[in-house]
Amino acid sequence: MSTLFVRTLRDDPNDAEVPSHKLLVRAGYIRRAAPGIYTWLPLGLRVLRRIEDIIREEMDGMGAQELSFPALLPKEPYEATHRWTDYGDNIFRLKDRKGGDYLLGPTHEEMFTLVVKDLYSSYKDLPLSIYQIQTKYRDEARPRAGLLRGREFVMKDSYSFDVSDAGLAESYQKHRDAYIRIFDRLGFDYVIVKATSGAMGGSASEEFLAKAEVGEDTYVRCTRCDYAANVEAVTVPAPVPVSYDDAPAAHAEDTPGTPTIDSLVDHLNDAFPRDDRPWAAGDTLKNVLVVLKHPDGTREPLAIGVPGDREVDQKRLEGQLEPIEVEPMDEAELAKHPALVKGYIGPGSLGEESTSGIRFVVDPRISEGTRWVTGADVHGSHVIDMVVGRDFTPDGTIEAAEVRDGDACPQCATRGDDGVLASARGIEMGHIFQLGRSYAEALGLKVLDENGKLVTVTMGSYGIGPSRAVAAIAEGTLDDIGLCWPRDVAPADVHIVAAGKEEAVHAAAEQLARDLKDAGLEVLLDDRAGKVSPGVKFKDAELIGVPTIVTVGRGLADGNVEVRDRKTGEREDVAVGDAAARIVGIVRT
Amino acid sequence: MSTLFVRTLRDDPNDAEVPSHKLLVRAGYIRRAAPGIYTWLPLGLRVLRRIEDIIREEMDGMGAQELSFPALLPKEPYEATHRWTDYGDNIFRLKDRKGGDYLLGPTHEEMFTLVVKDLYSSYKDLPLSIYQIQTKYRDEARPRAGLLRGREFVMKDSYSFDVSDAGLAESYQKHRDAYIRIFDRLGFDYVIVKATSGAMGGSASEEFLAKAEVGEDTYVRCTRCDYAANVEAVTVPAPVPVSYDDAPAAHAEDTPGTPTIDSLVDHLNDAFPRDDRPWAAGDTLKNVLVVLKHPDGTREPLAIGVPGDREVDQKRLEGQLEPIEVEPMDEAELAKHPALVKGYIGPGSLGEESTSGIRFVVDPRISEGTRWVTGADVHGSHVIDMVVGRDFTPDGTIEAAEVRDGDACPQCATRGDDGVLASARGIEMGHIFQLGRSYAEALGLKVLDENGKLVTVTMGSYGIGPSRAVAAIAEGTLDDIGLCWPRDVAPADVHIVAAGKEEAVHAAAEQLARDLKDAGLEVLLDDRAGKVSPGVKFKDAELIGVPTIVTVGRGLADGNVEVRDRKTGEREDVAVGDAAARIVGIVRT
Repeated sequence: MSTLFVRTLRDDPNDAEVPSHKLLVRAGYIRRAAPGIYTWLPLGLRVLRRIEDIIREEMDGMGAQELSFPALLPKEPYEATHRWTDYGDNIFRLKDRKGGDYLLGPTHEEMFTLVVKDLYSSYKDLPLSIYQIQTKYRDEARPRAGLLRGREFVMKDSYSFDVSDAGLAESYQKHRDAYIRIFDRLGFDYVIVKATSGAMGGSASEEFLAKAEVGEDTYVRCTRCDYAANVEAVTVPAPVPVSYDDAPAAHAEDTPGTPTIDSLVDHLNDAFPRDDRPWAAGDTLKNVLVVLKHPDGTREPLAIGVPGDREVDQKRLEGQLEPIEVEPMDEAELAKHPALVKGYIGPGSLGEESTSGIRFVVDPRISEGTRWVTGADVHGSHVIDMVVGRDFTPDGTIEAAEVRDGDACPQCATRGDDGVLASARGIEMGHIFQLGRSYAEALGLKVLDENGKLVTVTMGSYGIGPSRAVAAIAEGTLDDIGLCWPRDVAPADVHIVAAGKEEAVHAAAEQLARDLKDAGLEVLLDDRAGKVSPGVKFKDAELIGVPTIVTVGRGLADGNVEVRDRKTGEREDVAVGDAAARIVGIVRT
Repeated sequence: MSTLFVRTLRDDPNDAEVPSHKLLVRAGYIRRAAPGIYTWLPLGLRVLRRIEDIIREEMDGMGAQELSFPALLPKEPYEATHRWTDYGDNIFRLKDRKGGDYLLGPTHEEMFTLVVKDLYSSYKDLPLSIYQIQTKYRDEARPRAGLLRGREFVMKDSYSFDVSDAGLAESYQKHRDAYIRIFDRLGFDYVIVKATSGAMGGSASEEFLAKAEVGEDTYVRCTRCDYAANVEAVTVPAPVPVSYDDAPAAHAEDTPGTPTIDSLVDHLNDAFPRDDRPWAAGDTLKNVLVVLKHPDGTREPLAIGVPGDREVDQKRLEGQLEPIEVEPMDEAELAKHPALVKGYIGPGSLGEESTSGIRFVVDPRISEGTRWVTGADVHGSHVIDMVVGRDFTPDGTIEAAEVRDGDACPQCATRGDDGVLASARGIEMGHIFQLGRSYAEALGLKVLDENGKLVTVTMGSYGIGPSRAVAAIAEGTLDDIGLCWPRDVAPADVHIVAAGKEEAVHAAAEQLARDLKDAGLEVLLDDRAGKVSPGVKFKDAELIGVPTIVTVGRGLADGNVEVRDRKTGEREDVAVGDAAARIVGIVRT
């Protein structure tokens, strides 16, 4: 500590929002160089490297091979897959001195695909899994929370290459198993959730989330079964067919002054009371209008029908439509469609075949045979007993309605069980998915199969963010007094505090440090002399968060040092002569 | 080899200019992603990592601490040091989505300086040496020779921070010693040469060059003493004072049709023959006009006087003037200065006080008291017996004349010895120099000294390019049949060839591979079956260049395997049972 390039800070940095970010800066692990761009100081770099090493071991262990692509990439491959434009403002683009277009790689699907195309040509060469641990760039609109959402960050990205879908499923499972081993070794609480695959396309997709209140991702778990999913990936249980044989004919009614769901429900209960139960928001069909911004710049209106007791979830909607961006339809845009009557829009004016020609997609709950109260496309009027499939047919369905605690679990539903969903927040730390053949098709990656026929290769994509993991692990393990690292990623095994100015104290602390180093441990020795009091040293040790803190100080008079577990706070006095063996024992268990 | 992600190529790649580049591509170590931008395949990445690890060990060993800066950097620090503009087209610049200016770091002086300013405040904190191994970017005008001059490359850059000049000298020496250990371990032929410090400013400066014909750097060595210097850094021995008491007065003579040195010398010998020796080009003073392009865009004419038997060396000239660029003065520009008579320009029209007002600097050989034939600033006329200091006084001296084999060694000259210089070519692999206080001043890095006074810190800068080292080592060690790695950086310790289709051959090869792995060696096993002939396997092994090649094949019938030294070609038969021990012995010596 007397020479280590570190300075701890008493106060939280101004720009830090989340506890892990505050502590990583205060404890001298990282420094901000620009928004979303960080410098790794020695302590931080050690944690990052330990995480990378764990990932590398497990990737090598499952037979994946490491290589390394550049970060500065030519435009052409990304044009072939349309990502040059699809990424919009989210990538950094630049020109070289000759005017050539380049980007800073946000992910490397194209490069991996092309290198396999370059080297391999036969089904005999496959399966193949290759990976890199490398620096990536995204020009995030809102970099936040320190390392949790950075603009320059480290990623382990790997790709599997197979001839058949069954091969891909196997490669996916091998990666999934390796990821479980990695996350178990990293030593914190995580959950595997079903996920959407975002801009990448593809089918099966799961995320590894660190459980954390500050997480950006909301996920849900079933209260009964093992279902867990990112909110973007939650699906509504398949609708049970409903018979509408005894449903009355749809009838338009005057509902003056009811442009909102609340006012409509009040009016219905007032003017058209029901015997069995009062009208509720869930009986109404709300039609929300948005504008899709396609990557090529074109704009398209879209109507989304959801039960009146639910909002459209922007993230779920965008998750379905990526790389398209979505914004609400404003008054000016609405005015361009005279068929739409604000506050009273209904299926009569919606759909590709309708008066407005606006595509109309609905929540899966708006299923065939279900009955709804919805706008009559006339000011101050709604239609009651509108039956899907009889009175109107939407252009399709979309999973865009908000997910709520208590919603039915889709997995339980298939078994006839009654589990319900409960939400929590997490930090995305890993993402595995079956990418399929889209990249191989776009870039022409084919191999000869057993019959000498050219077939397109199918790919899987697997990512972990080691730099984000540093923050996520910190976030998941910190406590009131500082960082509190799991043993396998801590910047050192033992933090020895020489507590006192006496020469005997320093000599004993140094001897212990030497003995532990000889035994193969990483030791952080606080040998600062002069004005640094034992109190300051203890506070620093707690802040830095090495799992085992050893105090060489007053107890030395009785021949003892104190060994303390940073996490539990448990302390024990150990005779100086036994200390090294005892500490090695603690670290190695 | 049956699963390794590698394919060897029979033919040289089209874009490869130098042998190492050809072989690194052919042997499957690297692939080109864009001009000057490369992908590291598994074999290449292993060599790169081994080099990085050697560097890391020696840097840690000398007490330097590792950290890591981002590659994507904000403009502001680089504006404070003027490098944002000084670098001209040589850096990649880009804007983020909000229009903020960024660059891809070419070197990190600014960031190192600022992080020390952030963390440290007292002389007690120093000395400090910190380093990173990180990806850097330069938009080279002519990326060439594969990894030798890339646009994205790996650098180990370290900086030392001291309060005093003596401290800096000590830190410099520690780095120098560490560099010698590193280069010795890398296992190839290198030379340490005096260097200029280029755009960085600073004083003492040395380069570590790999001796290589394809190198871009020309250096010279003394044939007698240990002097060695980059051509840019060679100095002309201090002139011996010359008395001009008995020199005749300068006299202008008609020299019609002598606009070139050759025609002038012929005319002099014809019209004004000398008794003691004929006139030679070295008796004439040639005045070369150039235009300096300052980083801020302004242009300035400059006249450079050199002995008529030497050219101006553009690289030496630019080395003296960096970051200013230099171009020859063209006819149009020359016409703007009516005092200059093309072919007959002399000191009469040159100098800040002269008719042209053009600054006039001369080679140090044009020293006080020396006598020259030079232009009379009149068409068809030269002046003979022009004496420096009597007839004209230049505005200064400059080391810009070409260096030639046989020139006097400046170090010998100070001792009265007569060593002369001989030139050779090399690849710059390391550069260490005393940067001084310029960055600390520009960015306000001060600490309190022993008396509580704020003093500016002095810095040293030390770089090695691990990615360039891969190519330089390959270049320095390859032979006619392929790469030929030094043991400490080879991608594996042993390359076992299973030469034959027989099951016994493969079983024995696999067993040997297992035994060697258990003994801690890295083994590359060519276990390819089917149509891959032993001949192809041998050729691949020679191309890939692992230092020890073991053949398990025909000899197996007699209970032997063949152990071959890749470099010397020496072969020995070893009994299967003794093979593992024998090979471990070879690798470990």
